[in-house]
Amino acid sequence: MLTFHTADTQLRHPRSELHGGQLVTPFECPERVEIILARIRAAALGEVRDPERRGLAGVLEIHDAAYVEFLENLWDNWQAEGHGGEPIPSIWPARTLRGDRIPDNLEGRLGYYALAAETSVCAGTFRAALASKDIALAATDQVLAHGGGAFGLCRPPGHHAARDQFGGYCFFNNAAIAAQHARDHGVARVAILDVDFHHGNGTQEIFYTRDDVLFASIHGDPALEFPYYLGYADETGSGRGAGFTLNYPLPPGTGYPRWRQALEDALARIQTFGAELLIVSLGVDTFAQDPISSFTLESDDFSDYGGLLKRTGLPTVFLLEGGYAVEEIGVNVVNVLSGFDAG
Amino acid sequence: MLTFHTADTQLRHPRSELHGGQLVTPFECPERVEIILARIRAAALGEVRDPERRGLAGVLEIHDAAYVEFLENLWDNWQAEGHGGEPIPSIWPARTLRGDRIPDNLEGRLGYYALAAETSVCAGTFRAALASKDIALAATDQVLAHGGGAFGLCRPPGHHAARDQFGGYCFFNNAAIAAQHARDHGVARVAILDVDFHHGNGTQEIFYTRDDVLFASIHGDPALEFPYYLGYADETGSGRGAGFTLNYPLPPGTGYPRWRQALEDALARIQTFGAELLIVSLGVDTFAQDPISSFTLESDDFSDYGGLLKRTGLPTVFLLEGGYAVEEIGVNVVNVLSGFDAG
Repeated sequence: MLTFHTADTQLRHPRSELHGGQLVTPFECPERVEIILARIRAAALGEVRDPERRGLAGVLEIHDAAYVEFLENLWDNWQAEGHGGEPIPSIWPARTLRGDRIPDNLEGRLGYYALAAETSVCAGTFRAALASKDIALAATDQVLAHGGGAFGLCRPPGHHAARDQFGGYCFFNNAAIAAQHARDHGVARVAILDVDFHHGNGTQEIFYTRDDVLFASIHGDPALEFPYYLGYADETGSGRGAGFTLNYPLPPGTGYPRWRQALEDALARIQTFGAELLIVSLGVDTFAQDPISSFTLESDDFSDYGGLLKRTGLPTVFLLEGGYAVEEIGVNVVNVLSGFDAG
Repeated sequence: MLTFHTADTQLRHPRSELHGGQLVTPFECPERVEIILARIRAAALGEVRDPERRGLAGVLEIHDAAYVEFLENLWDNWQAEGHGGEPIPSIWPARTLRGDRIPDNLEGRLGYYALAAETSVCAGTFRAALASKDIALAATDQVLAHGGGAFGLCRPPGHHAARDQFGGYCFFNNAAIAAQHARDHGVARVAILDVDFHHGNGTQEIFYTRDDVLFASIHGDPALEFPYYLGYADETGSGRGAGFTLNYPLPPGTGYPRWRQALEDALARIQTFGAELLIVSLGVDTFAQDPISSFTLESDDFSDYGGLLKRTGLPTVFLLEGGYAVEEIGVNVVNVLSGFDAG
């Protein structure tokens, strides 16, 4: 399988993450990419190719223009104000405040465009997010042209990013941008399957009222797990999108047999939907040893479900999302991809 | 003038405030009370008296019961989870997420019940907030019984606390609790005048649909200043409360002449309203040297407006809110109170 990668994703290396009331070294770190790349090479998965760089192409089809402009200038504006740390929101338009005014003040805008505070911003974040998006587009073009599978080694990840909000380490929603790109190139029905441990709230929000992009997510029960406020089973889409969102929230300690049942159910729904393209939001934080998750998948399980995905017969784009057990992330990601190739 | 104070307010001494992307020593610190007390004694303002302690009395008339229970147990629950830092929310029910589900997870509930992340919680926060509330009730009872003025040396402050959200260093809305207490003891119409530099978003939210409590606030334009998402001039109340909220957002650099004009306008409206009791949310962060504000009042200006308040002839309860120029906070607070006494 082809992998798309560019070192520009490594321009994202913030120094702080708000975690348990402390500023710690971010879990979503550059080493994740290095370890996956090393494993891709060790396992001889296939060629690693640079994506074509496309500037903002694809971004504004999904994201709000003012949000994108805010992100592009955030670091410089923050530096100009002379703050000691990285941009982290400290107030937001909560339910007892107004949501219809975007303040002029930078901290006010930061809180408006954020949905979480763990995601610090650094100088290279915007360029890294564009690079990550280009990786997703390149992998999608590869599959549209040649079928089979391709892997976008995206970083930062994308599935928590909403139309006009960042958070959960995500800025641009790579999977949503890839899906829209496919729609704009003649694919009538796209399915996004989100197997990251955390619910893909951004992707769900973006397509919630649409019937041309099915969103299915298997994840930790949001009553107990990030992002807490979306991903419940009763969220099934609205308007034209009614029935085109599928959520499988699962309890802590969920192991592979139960997880695989949810996957089989989701894949059956994807087939019924008539998807012509499958985009997999590939987080491997379902792994038993992941430091911020609570499922118990083992490395062999990733190989197994890679094979299951192959059996759909659908052209399949894999886009990296989460996965934080840094040493094992390479093995688990490549096991999914190799499992697909062997399936 | 009588002052009400108890050392229990000093049980609130968190070590961290999220500020400019760093964790710094909180601006809202125990020394504020010590400095004001010292100045009260140096200026021979009057007796300093302990308030009667009343448990939860008054709290549930204003705040949501589940919110209060959450606050009461937050520190112990957080400690039980073994976090390294103090409770600071890292995600919240943003507009692209659901606001109608309160998660079971503690961080999920923390984000649900917070409107800002600068306000860390420490072991003594809940008891200090109750003490602060008791101070407000004692000052109110004093004025209801004897007329004139009384000062509640409240800490933590209250005016940013909404019915079910904390933030801006506030947990229980002391002014709102005092106003409701007065209403419940036969005062037909209560005016709350908020002269803190920051808009009293919590107080406004609590009384926004009521015509028995007038809320007037003079503050930094929220387009530019905390709390950013409330306090605009077009917020005037709704339903029965239409016309009973008055906001005077003023630009950075506002000096005393313009500020005094706003105050005179507000006092005229309070008289027309027919207020029988005036509660002053007394923040002195309008001071020119305040580290997190942008008005330019000087210490003599505080004396002057104390006198203006006296000329309303209304029984007046002063409750401490903000003010962070630690050395001068004593002078400025006591200047308002002495100005009132001399007016």
